Amino acid sequence: MGNSFGKLFEVSSWGESHGGGIGVVVDGCPPLLPLCENDIQPFLDRRRPGQSKITTPREEADKIEILSGVYEGKTLGTPIAMLVRNKDARPQAYDEMKTKFRPSHADYTYQMKFGIRNHEGGGRSSARETISRVAAGAIAQKILSFEGINISTYVERIHNIEMPAKSGFPTLQEVEASPTRCPDPNTAEKMEKRILEAKKAGDSVGGSIICRTTGLPVGWGAPVFDRMEADLAKAALSIPATKAFEIGSGFKGTFLKGSEHNDSFEIRDGITRTKTNNSGGVQGGITNGEELYFRVAFKPTATVLKVQNTVNDEGKETELMGRGRHDPCVLPRAVPIVEAMAALVLLNHRMIHNAQCKSFFFED
Amino acid sequence: MGNSFGKLFEVSSWGESHGGGIGVVVDGCPPLLPLCENDIQPFLDRRRPGQSKITTPREEADKIEILSGVYEGKTLGTPIAMLVRNKDARPQAYDEMKTKFRPSHADYTYQMKFGIRNHEGGGRSSARETISRVAAGAIAQKILSFEGINISTYVERIHNIEMPAKSGFPTLQEVEASPTRCPDPNTAEKMEKRILEAKKAGDSVGGSIICRTTGLPVGWGAPVFDRMEADLAKAALSIPATKAFEIGSGFKGTFLKGSEHNDSFEIRDGITRTKTNNSGGVQGGITNGEELYFRVAFKPTATVLKVQNTVNDEGKETELMGRGRHDPCVLPRAVPIVEAMAALVLLNHRMIHNAQCKSFFFED
Amino acid sequence: MGNSFGKLFEVSSWGESHGGGIGVVVDGCPPLLPLCENDIQPFLDRRRPGQSKITTPREEADKIEILSGVYEGKTLGTPIAMLVRNKDARPQAYDEMKTKFRPSHADYTYQMKFGIRNHEGGGRSSARETISRVAAGAIAQKILSFEGINISTYVERIHNIEMPAKSGFPTLQEVEASPTRCPDPNTAEKMEKRILEAKKAGDSVGGSIICRTTGLPVGWGAPVFDRMEADLAKAALSIPATKAFEIGSGFKGTFLKGSEHNDSFEIRDGITRTKTNNSGGVQGGITNGEELYFRVAFKPTATVLKVQNTVNDEGKETELMGRGRHDPCVLPRAVPIVEAMAALVLLNHRMIHNAQCKSFFFED
Amino acid sequence: MGNSFGKLFEVSSWGESHGGGIGVVVDGCPPLLPLCENDIQPFLDRRRPGQSKITTPREEADKIEILSGVYEGKTLGTPIAMLVRNKDARPQAYDEMKTKFRPSHADYTYQMKFGIRNHEGGGRSSARETISRVAAGAIAQKILSFEGINISTYVERIHNIEMPAKSGFPTLQEVEASPTRCPDPNTAEKMEKRILEAKKAGDSVGGSIICRTTGLPVGWGAPVFDRMEADLAKAALSIPATKAFEIGSGFKGTFLKGSEHNDSFEIRDGITRTKTNNSGGVQGGITNGEELYFRVAFKPTATVLKVQNTVNDEGKETELMGRGRHDPCVLPRAVPIVEAMAALVLLNHRMIHNAQCKSFFFED
Repeated sequence: MGNSFGKLFEVSSWGESHGGGIGVVVDGCPPLLPLCENDIQPFLDRRRPGQSKITTPREEADKIEILSGVYEGKTLGTPIAMLVRNKDARPQAYDEMKTKFRPSHADYTYQMKFGIRNHEGGGRSSARETISRVAAGAIAQKILSFEGINISTYVERIHNIEMPAKSGFPTLQEVEASPTRCPDPNTAEKMEKRILEAKKAGDSVGGSIICRTTGLPVGWGAPVFDRMEADLAKAALSIPATKAFEIGSGFKGTFLKGSEHNDSFEIRDGITRTKTNNSGGVQGGITNGEELYFRVAFKPTATVLKVQNTVNDEGKETELMGRGRHDPCVLPRAVPIVEAMAALVLLNHRMIHNAQCKSFFFED
Repeated sequence: MGNSFGKLFEVSSWGESHGGGIGVVVDGCPPLLPLCENDIQPFLDRRRPGQSKITTPREEADKIEILSGVYEGKTLGTPIAMLVRNKDARPQAYDEMKTKFRPSHADYTYQMKFGIRNHEGGGRSSARETISRVAAGAIAQKILSFEGINISTYVERIHNIEMPAKSGFPTLQEVEASPTRCPDPNTAEKMEKRILEAKKAGDSVGGSIICRTTGLPVGWGAPVFDRMEADLAKAALSIPATKAFEIGSGFKGTFLKGSEHNDSFEIRDGITRTKTNNSGGVQGGITNGEELYFRVAFKPTATVLKVQNTVNDEGKETELMGRGRHDPCVLPRAVPIVEAMAALVLLNHRMIHNAQCKSFFFED
Repeated sequence: MGNSFGKLFEVSSWGESHGGGIGVVVDGCPPLLPLCENDIQPFLDRRRPGQSKITTPREEADKIEILSGVYEGKTLGTPIAMLVRNKDARPQAYDEMKTKFRPSHADYTYQMKFGIRNHEGGGRSSARETISRVAAGAIAQKILSFEGINISTYVERIHNIEMPAKSGFPTLQEVEASPTRCPDPNTAEKMEKRILEAKKAGDSVGGSIICRTTGLPVGWGAPVFDRMEADLAKAALSIPATKAFEIGSGFKGTFLKGSEHNDSFEIRDGITRTKTNNSGGVQGGITNGEELYFRVAFKPTATVLKVQNTVNDEGKETELMGRGRHDPCVLPRAVPIVEAMAALVLLNHRMIHNAQCKSFFFED
Repeated sequence: MGNSFGKLFEVSSWGESHGGGIGVVVDGCPPLLPLCENDIQPFLDRRRPGQSKITTPREEADKIEILSGVYEGKTLGTPIAMLVRNKDARPQAYDEMKTKFRPSHADYTYQMKFGIRNHEGGGRSSARETISRVAAGAIAQKILSFEGINISTYVERIHNIEMPAKSGFPTLQEVEASPTRCPDPNTAEKMEKRILEAKKAGDSVGGSIICRTTGLPVGWGAPVFDRMEADLAKAALSIPATKAFEIGSGFKGTFLKGSEHNDSFEIRDGITRTKTNNSGGVQGGITNGEELYFRVAFKPTATVLKVQNTVNDEGKETELMGRGRHDPCVLPRAVPIVEAMAALVLLNHRMIHNAQCKSFFFED
């Protein structure tokens, strides 16, 4: 339960870290979209393990195969199934974890909920599951790009190293310039050093990612439960290792007075705009045409190469020495995941808005 | 669209600030639950306007009427419809807002999305809509209480006045002792003063609310998209004026190393427990039996009694003097709303967990 | 559970026969639709009891009140709540049924499922529930009429009295000319006589209703599970007292050979059309632009004024004398219900089709 | 859109006749169910082409592969992905159909809806899609069998050859004794002959299938929209080539009077039972513990090996000679499909009933 996402652009995800593979079914994709594996692979390459010295050494090419829904290079409007086979699985590395629960992982809760778990590489709770999201998100991003929508997602902070506020809108090239996916070169260098320090110490670090979107029209989103920021918050907090979400001014904005925080309207280039953007591009749950931006906090990776106190599946206290290949910091690889989830939310709201508000004309 | 919430305990909300009333339909409620208006009214009384000198003076008794789904004092298992009529509506107070968009409100986005809006009191975008949530949440809370689950929700911070970390679990009486709904008397006094200062200055303040739950079993929640924290984040960010959500250690936890942040397991009173609780009671999207806690940030009220720059519906710049009755700080009244949304999420996950995992026995 | 219908034009129904009333919430209605009570009342008048001598004598004006979602005569795009109060309730007439289960009613199954039931007038299982459907359907029908879509629904057969096949498309006036809602005057007269005979004998009769729709574009519907005919079948069989559903040639078509049954294509007036219409306007689950037609079978009313063998809630055999006001034949009043359900299905598919297929243009 | 089925036991289907394969994702399966390919393959073998001389000669082993959701022979409670690769595809056999629309197929409507279609073997509209249903249904049937529920599905009528009413409950062996899947040997022989005659003439025949279930408890199903029979009707009419659905007495019952049609209650073996079963095991949308039975009508196969009038994709009239391998009668292979859909509906209602009604105890 809970492995599907989206009301109209519906994504169903499946797979375990060391099982037959990871896959996804996308239902509701508009027909006639030009699409092939090459549209999706670059997104997965940004997420895949082994891409740099600051990520896990697990070697997975994460080669995507489109199994259905595309014909002669265009989408059919019927479900698009995609599959990535697992290759570099080393289940024996996880033998100790068969009986011992790793602290701050999902081992204990999965075992208690289901009465069974695949402990190899975390099974379904592994972040390999996010391949599904990135593959589906890649399609959503391609569709959104046809409408002039740009998303820029990057690492803002690692541990306590934060990049200075940036007025520009970083390009993909600027983000990709560093393996940290921080577009500020000075900060990126410090971040990389901090991550390598943590790695060397067998420890890990967290931080925060910002996702920014321009080119959005006014009117996407909904009142009440399915507000744009509510759906983005759910999307963000569904990503492994996330702890917090902020839209616009977030926690900082709560230290302002209303008179300081409000975004006055003005006319700019003939269009109604706000002078400031504490709202983060959303008012009353609906986009207002300004830049939409939100932040997501990621905890330090739970796997650390140290001895930790824990409990085994017989209810006895014991110790566990962290093993297995892992990332000392998940944020660089989480950037395309956050972006994918944002794209899925945006596209769904675009389709819903169109269905309800853009296609009816009531003239007597 | 977007006015329903919950997969199994399904809540459908309707109504505008100055229309025929506010109502809600709850489908999926278990049968045989003892239920009458008196079970719900106290929850609405905590939310209603005019309850103290720090809330809006709008006078609404918010008297609830149960229209269906209850027979001889017990739920039938069929939809429970509830209705609150609007009484103290003063639509003329909003005449200026018919053409001018209030900054950081939903006026502009609703108008642009729908091509029409009810400007009186904010129409559908008014926080009066949350009556529906509190009424539905009251039922959910009654059900959860039968299972030994306690929720304590309170104001932790107003503007920059924050209560000291509290080890105890505040009772309802402690929370209700101050109109601020901060259970620490010293802090509550300062908060009240700060709110009244803001009110006097025609300004407003924000802050943060914490929601804590004890008595949860291990195993509620789901992998991947419908993680417990993802659904709580959506629930929280769907409340008007919210800007951020944190589960467990939240943003602060991202400044720790993995070795500092991890929650070691131990055996306590014969039960597997964690020594610390940075996870906030959820691991891998599933409750681990520890206290579940999360924070929600609320911005300062957008209505301020000052002249603000804005734009009208003809695309001309203009000024708007804030009018209408409003709260200088929404947090005291938001406490029962946050609690209601948490209860709706928890109950849905309880029902889903039961449906999938607790009722099948496969023995050959 | 199960009291909501529709993916985008979402209808949530509530209420019992003798409770506070019957109501419905419609979410997803497009904004700017001109709408008032007068648009809906005529549909309810066709459904209401006491409308003629062949229907139940229960006197209910079934006066509709719109509580939300409409402002200055137009829909807001937010939920439309509607309410009909129960007036002529005589709960004491049902005292015997408090303990005895009426044969072929829902008394026994509701009691066993929920452990409780409101026995007065059937409670939630009463056909009064269909007020919600007709009210919501009236809105859907108004929207569809703006797009040139016409629905004609009428009684084809009562007991074994069947009208001759009709080539024309009966108008509302022709259907309403007889209280039987059979547009063939000769047949209608015989039907009326048959119904009155049954009534006099304390008995009841059933029959079948046909629903026909013209003006549909090609392309509404979906492959696989949400085929147009699948959704219509569900809609039809969700109506109380229904036993069967046929699309197009139905059961009769299964006695033909493929070469006889196939609908050849031809060009007519420059448009691709089928020569015959055994498909009933749907091919592969998607409308083909031909007339869409389906049949629904209704059983004879379960309430008969005769002594029947039954069982009471203590598991003892007993007898029950039918009482309560009821219809000797439900079909005349079921006509607007079938029509409403068809309109809900069609509008949902129209919105879904638009969301996925009609609003994207992928040009490089 | 429309490729998912089920609220709690959620099935997502994908694939085309001649694409990379056919697959399905099942989310919501209870954990700890013993499961392997051998549990599913026999169901697919009953559906696969080439199984006898009265089915299509297309040779497909339809070998199932479980890709996820099972660990050490038991279900994990997370999504089960299953895949069948297409082998014996002969796309060139369909070249003529690239431009010409086959009468009474989905070619024209798919092309018009999506602006594109995979014409090879019907693409997504091919009945190969039903592999997904049968594979998912096999899991549902295994779960239901643990609860003592038996389903017997068989061919009752081919063209005008109908088996005599049978009082017994045919076993799987009796059904499988004839390639027609009619458990009455005399009728089966005549049916087989009729099918071969049609095949020889390049023609096709239809008929009806009955599905019967015993061992159901009282209480599955729901009031109003999600009645058991409504969900079964949708499930049935979502199967390719279906034209009608009947629950219980169906169309025939509408020729009876109420006093003849009602199912009186009695006490049998200490249990409340009905004397007759015109209701078909469902009253008020909820199972009453009697045998649940329904009928589904299938039209004669649309592919016939004759010259037919049609239209091409340039809007010109033309002729088409039926080609491609096909079944002269779909019913024998449709039996496991009907059974699978029934199992999916039943299991979903079982899970929903449990979630709402079976797991709460409200005692003060």
